[in-house]
Amino acid sequence: MSDSPISAEQSARELDLTNRVLRSFDGTHDPRLKYLMTELVTSLHDYVRRVRLTEAEWNAAIAFLTRVGHMTNDRRQEFILLSDVLGVSMQTIAVNNEAVGDATEATVFGPFFVADAPEIPNGGDLAGEAPGEPAWVEGTVTDIDGRVVPGARLEVWEADEEGLYDVQHDDGRVYGRAHLFADAEGRYRFWGLFPTPYPIPDDGPVGDLLRAAGRSPYRASHLHFMVTAPGYRTLVTHIFVRGDELLDHDSVFGVKESLIHDWEHHAAGDATPDGRDLDGRTWASTRFDIVLAPVDAI
Amino acid sequence: MSDSPISAEQSARELDLTNRVLRSFDGTHDPRLKYLMTELVTSLHDYVRRVRLTEAEWNAAIAFLTRVGHMTNDRRQEFILLSDVLGVSMQTIAVNNEAVGDATEATVFGPFFVADAPEIPNGGDLAGEAPGEPAWVEGTVTDIDGRVVPGARLEVWEADEEGLYDVQHDDGRVYGRAHLFADAEGRYRFWGLFPTPYPIPDDGPVGDLLRAAGRSPYRASHLHFMVTAPGYRTLVTHIFVRGDELLDHDSVFGVKESLIHDWEHHAAGDATPDGRDLDGRTWASTRFDIVLAPVDAI
Repeated sequence: MSDSPISAEQSARELDLTNRVLRSFDGTHDPRLKYLMTELVTSLHDYVRRVRLTEAEWNAAIAFLTRVGHMTNDRRQEFILLSDVLGVSMQTIAVNNEAVGDATEATVFGPFFVADAPEIPNGGDLAGEAPGEPAWVEGTVTDIDGRVVPGARLEVWEADEEGLYDVQHDDGRVYGRAHLFADAEGRYRFWGLFPTPYPIPDDGPVGDLLRAAGRSPYRASHLHFMVTAPGYRTLVTHIFVRGDELLDHDSVFGVKESLIHDWEHHAAGDATPDGRDLDGRTWASTRFDIVLAPVDAI
Repeated sequence: MSDSPISAEQSARELDLTNRVLRSFDGTHDPRLKYLMTELVTSLHDYVRRVRLTEAEWNAAIAFLTRVGHMTNDRRQEFILLSDVLGVSMQTIAVNNEAVGDATEATVFGPFFVADAPEIPNGGDLAGEAPGEPAWVEGTVTDIDGRVVPGARLEVWEADEEGLYDVQHDDGRVYGRAHLFADAEGRYRFWGLFPTPYPIPDDGPVGDLLRAAGRSPYRASHLHFMVTAPGYRTLVTHIFVRGDELLDHDSVFGVKESLIHDWEHHAAGDATPDGRDLDGRTWASTRFDIVLAPVDAI
């Protein structure tokens, strides 16, 4: 982007500075930290040199990060949002969840998980009072050789049809989240809500960045899962909805083809799998068979 | 660092993600912002892939940045400190202040400049009540062809001998800073303090990083200058002290060989250049001839 070529003398001066900074980390005790810091310094200095970052741009970056820091509190993590919209979160997940056979693929964890969500029985309802269309989800948990994994723990959470998770309300409500256990044959089933799209919080600096880039803050409709079983790699993933027009524009790049599901839509009064009376409401259903990778994979 | 090679399929999956993120910035209106963001995404994703960043490390990075954000306020800029100790500030300065002839080199601005420091006459004292050894500084301001630059404005600021700037005290004191003007022949002179070393604030996350790296928070002894004159590139620089053992270990990488000065040390009672009576104190002196680059250089 610079109009004039960089002289050899200038290049040497810039590289010499980088080398001095790299040497300053020579005494780092932890070898992994030393490696991470030297690679970080290399990347950051390369960036500044390559783009010929102006002092005004450096000031703008400092001011932006300061806003991100001041927007972050116990209920709002703007640094995670920033990592998400830059695809850094998904790239970290990609690096740590290399494909293993037909194991179910992972995607972003997101900021709305709650560790102590209520337990429901297998076949129970996690929607609670959350507004939205009832949805039946069932499947089997197996390993990559097709063998049943008995008793896996499933954490499931999702937004209501207004696009908000329970924790985004200020009144302490708990809905749209639960944990349950698959049975001895690996089978699980529950009632939730048919997932709907929603925007990530965009009233802070990350929202400003998205607007400057002409990007939408919306996430494709999804239902969150975290599946754990002894001896298996913990699976953090979503299921998406085939046909959702946001699949190609998910603001955090969480969509993977293998996670897009066909959902059936049922008329009001159609018989439900467990005989539940839905008071004349329509409902949806899908099947999500989960394949866990062994913990020592890769 | 990974023990196992990355499969071609895995590499393709990781690169595909990066490309999706890059495409999301296609609609950025400002071409420079688009360029900066696409290069940033490229650099960050390359880093995550190259170091095979773990999810625990990603979490640690989010927590570290959160601490940096919460440590930053109107009196403390931890993001600037972080940029400083990673050499990013100096690299930005290097990129924007390419050498022009014999023009005086630039170095870091630092966080302790105050815009409305008091004016002193040419030859006046900027130390005020600050504890420290008196030091006489004089020189001439010229352009790169050796022609006098008349009437340049010099901002000068420095820490006291306890290693603190006036603004680091909570009592509103003003000392160790002033502005003055060179005369029609480009000559300037003033009394300040002989510079002494001090640590950057190290009670926050940046201090923790320095300790993990076995690095000292100390800056080499220095005196700050900002020199402005119409038609010339603003010069932000320091002068250092030859023989200071911290010259090779400055925590923000601000030292340049051309900025290291010889200082003369004078016994108590030695005659001063302007006849000032120093009440039996020792004093120091140096000469700093300033060469300004034209504003349209490079």
